[in-house]
Amino acid sequence: MRQSNMLIPTLREVPKEADIPSHQLLLKAGYIRKLASGVYNFLPLGKRVLRKLETIIREEMDRTGAQEIQMPSLQPAELWESSGRWETMGLELMRLNDRHERRFALGATHEEVVTSLIGDEINSYKKLPLTVYQIQNKFRDEKRPRFGLLRGREFLMKDAYSFHETYESLDEAYDQLFTAYKRIFERCGLNFRAVIADSGAMGGKDTHEFMVLSDIGEDTIAYSDESDYAANVEMAPVHQTYESSNDEAMPLEKVETPNAKTMQEVADYLDHTLQEGMKAIMFKVDDRFVMVVTRGDHEVNDVKVKNLLDANIVELATEQETIDAVGAGFGSLGPIGVPDDVEVIADHAVKALVNATCGANDNGYHYRNVNPERDFSATQYADVRFIEEGDPSPDGHGTIQFAKGIEVGHVFKLGSIYADKLGASFLNQEGRAQHYIMGCYGIGVSRTLAAVVEQFHDEQGMLWPDSLVPFDVHIVNLNMKKDEQVTVAESVYDTLQHQGFDVLYDDRPERAGVKFNDSDLIGITHRVTVGKRAGEGYVEYKNRQTGEQQDVHVDDLPAFLSSTTHA
Amino acid sequence: MRQSNMLIPTLREVPKEADIPSHQLLLKAGYIRKLASGVYNFLPLGKRVLRKLETIIREEMDRTGAQEIQMPSLQPAELWESSGRWETMGLELMRLNDRHERRFALGATHEEVVTSLIGDEINSYKKLPLTVYQIQNKFRDEKRPRFGLLRGREFLMKDAYSFHETYESLDEAYDQLFTAYKRIFERCGLNFRAVIADSGAMGGKDTHEFMVLSDIGEDTIAYSDESDYAANVEMAPVHQTYESSNDEAMPLEKVETPNAKTMQEVADYLDHTLQEGMKAIMFKVDDRFVMVVTRGDHEVNDVKVKNLLDANIVELATEQETIDAVGAGFGSLGPIGVPDDVEVIADHAVKALVNATCGANDNGYHYRNVNPERDFSATQYADVRFIEEGDPSPDGHGTIQFAKGIEVGHVFKLGSIYADKLGASFLNQEGRAQHYIMGCYGIGVSRTLAAVVEQFHDEQGMLWPDSLVPFDVHIVNLNMKKDEQVTVAESVYDTLQHQGFDVLYDDRPERAGVKFNDSDLIGITHRVTVGKRAGEGYVEYKNRQTGEQQDVHVDDLPAFLSSTTHA
Repeated sequence: MRQSNMLIPTLREVPKEADIPSHQLLLKAGYIRKLASGVYNFLPLGKRVLRKLETIIREEMDRTGAQEIQMPSLQPAELWESSGRWETMGLELMRLNDRHERRFALGATHEEVVTSLIGDEINSYKKLPLTVYQIQNKFRDEKRPRFGLLRGREFLMKDAYSFHETYESLDEAYDQLFTAYKRIFERCGLNFRAVIADSGAMGGKDTHEFMVLSDIGEDTIAYSDESDYAANVEMAPVHQTYESSNDEAMPLEKVETPNAKTMQEVADYLDHTLQEGMKAIMFKVDDRFVMVVTRGDHEVNDVKVKNLLDANIVELATEQETIDAVGAGFGSLGPIGVPDDVEVIADHAVKALVNATCGANDNGYHYRNVNPERDFSATQYADVRFIEEGDPSPDGHGTIQFAKGIEVGHVFKLGSIYADKLGASFLNQEGRAQHYIMGCYGIGVSRTLAAVVEQFHDEQGMLWPDSLVPFDVHIVNLNMKKDEQVTVAESVYDTLQHQGFDVLYDDRPERAGVKFNDSDLIGITHRVTVGKRAGEGYVEYKNRQTGEQQDVHVDDLPAFLSSTTHA
Repeated sequence: MRQSNMLIPTLREVPKEADIPSHQLLLKAGYIRKLASGVYNFLPLGKRVLRKLETIIREEMDRTGAQEIQMPSLQPAELWESSGRWETMGLELMRLNDRHERRFALGATHEEVVTSLIGDEINSYKKLPLTVYQIQNKFRDEKRPRFGLLRGREFLMKDAYSFHETYESLDEAYDQLFTAYKRIFERCGLNFRAVIADSGAMGGKDTHEFMVLSDIGEDTIAYSDESDYAANVEMAPVHQTYESSNDEAMPLEKVETPNAKTMQEVADYLDHTLQEGMKAIMFKVDDRFVMVVTRGDHEVNDVKVKNLLDANIVELATEQETIDAVGAGFGSLGPIGVPDDVEVIADHAVKALVNATCGANDNGYHYRNVNPERDFSATQYADVRFIEEGDPSPDGHGTIQFAKGIEVGHVFKLGSIYADKLGASFLNQEGRAQHYIMGCYGIGVSRTLAAVVEQFHDEQGMLWPDSLVPFDVHIVNLNMKKDEQVTVAESVYDTLQHQGFDVLYDDRPERAGVKFNDSDLIGITHRVTVGKRAGEGYVEYKNRQTGEQQDVHVDDLPAFLSSTTHA
């Protein structure tokens, strides 16, 4: 394409609203434009990258045997009512009425539609397992759309759904899709981790999130520095053995701790380390009270508490509730002398403490020389704390590091929830009606594009990986007024296109500085500059990624580029 | 793909709601499924055809230099208010509010968004001309969705928009796109006509509709039996010379015509032919009255009246208005003695009449021996009637025939209307701000798919053209219980896939009759049946289009199919 005719509106200034690199660069380099909050136009360069990404996804999905279909965005409200999500999705689900006042949801996801479709069309185990997928714009009315393509309200997604007779069959599909997802993100050149995630409110079984490592990520990942292990920080179990000191147990002592409320204040006042204290937090768990005790330097992980107690709702008790339950407020809680109706759960690390400190359930007082089991007993010792950097990796290999991540993919064992709610069944091998066992698998396509930019850019602009770069080669003619240069540039443009290269040719009547800036911004890896040596038949090659630079004779150019681009 | 694992839910019964072949077959052969009125799921086979169609469209659009972009479906109401279409689109435009009660339209078309986008991003004639396009689902709340994919509420469209400094430049783009459209529909194998259409309420200049000829079409096309000429029946001019008879003019005579109101009744009562009568119709044209007179056997074309008088609104007068204007009701109108404030316009054919009949503007009376210009004068004689079968073609070649057509594409010279309304301008060559001159170009992608089925099917099912067929080859193994046949079928399946054929393999444990029926229904051109001669190494080839049938040795099969499919 000739750049003079192409819609690439590069900007000199970074738009104010953009506060992360991908958002800034996609706007600045003319890849996208905002139409409304969280709603973007894809301009030609952006669309080209998107299509390359779609092709990668399609190839890998097809390789698993998944079948591409296309479901509508207009979805009858009744389907969403059957699943209960017409209510639970709240304001995030966009809704509209048609001319006959029939209610519709705009597809935020397609579990309801696909479950209903497969339930209607397949009646026998003989057609199972079956995986379908689609690539399509989704609509979610985010409360706070931001970060450009990372959190939009209309965005491109690949969603897939698998249907099974048995959990073993679901496991197989899950593994296949997991592998496909790894290949997809690898082909995008991304530094990512497949992270064990919380199956949460959906009630499913296994679930992994694919996280692109990036400082602007909103999620924290705990990963091993020596293995593939990675988990959402809420989900990582702590596998650590705590050694008790050999100190002799001293007599329990109640001491006044005026004005010392936080763990640090108490530690300072009583002159010990945080590790020698106990932290007690009161939770309301499905309408009863549970006190959870960790070591002073650890943080309670409420997801673990919830899973441990198999609870529906776990929330912090209010200070008043705490006072009513044990007679003291937040600053003086501890496991000693707790009434029978309050369950005490302690972290494994607590059990190893000797002569520790804890609140006395008496405002302004703490106990010293607390020894677990001698001075109090917990109903159980369990893993209820957050993992921390430096902890051993749960898989036994290496130690835990933290990183921020952008979620670009998600694989999820749904089980039969949707089929149960929508009554979608088939005849199984025993000839009995059975609800489908399902998996669902999503990739945020436009979000992945932004994540790639987050990982591949420098001060000057984008640095596209080969698999997604919008053009193979960028020809920059430095002076459109010099006939000699124009002749060489046009000839190189023709030759390279003829050889099958996808070429962007900067034929604009602009200054060299503007052209180089735009070229760096747009980020095409292989640049061919036609300048002063054109008369001798030489052009300058520069690699945007490596900075490598050399003069190449035009006759050698196609062969040189072929070997360089592996095209 | 193995058919046993593929979602192709063929039906034995035609669903009641489907009353045209494409709708029946697309449902019956498992290509689509309805989700809601006018809203369809594309199943794997349907999606495959759709993607082939998209590829053809993309290739031809790219060849014109048009640039692919992607605009959102969520469109702020303010844009539609600027163009006036928030009002004028009425109930057809689907609307919704976001969580902050901001109003949005769901993209029914993208003139507003693209005009605003280009207006914001391009500021100089140097970037013009520019054509952008996208392939995307559109939403229109049709009053009466019907005919399956032909008139849906969510449907796939390719829309393109061109931007120009001059009308000459628009003309060039229009011609380019016109050629691209012809190539697209030719590549789909369609029998179609590019039809001169009414630029209508959009106020544009030239416009052509691409019509696929089909009896189920809702539009009537007037086309020449000897040339490329084709026009929407409303738009075809009548280029005919009418010869007057040599009869001597007789004296005008007013006669009573009791109970004779229609043209036919009057003709019968007065014993003359319809051609010897005059038909007078009263119109209200922008609040004045105009009587339009045609020959008794012709029909007034109100579009021609509107264009002739350069009017905004042309509507039939009520009978009371007619009585008030000329003193008589519908059955007795005529051009003689009409008050001065009622303009009389007559068709060219009227001027040639000798001793004709017309209403006397006196209920129950007609004039006989009426001779134009002697007995009345029209303000003008013009072409104001509908063209008819048998009329000479307006281009001078052949005679006019009528056909029904399905509109699959539309090219339209918009002019500057949208740029004027949205204030979208650029600096032109004289350095002055100028509004864009625009063209718009649409293809109904899912509708084209249905139109192809309308033209290519027989009693048994679909007959896909090579360019759109969902698979290259259909292997049908007649008996999955015979090891010999399974071995041969599997080997042929592997070999053909290895050679690059896209193969559907019917490996289902079904009876031969079921398999043949489904194969005919699905409509893949090249069928390879593995049957009793498998042991000898022979399979049967059958061409779904020609019925040609022959035994081929498995070793010769790849070469045979390559030569047959030109793959």
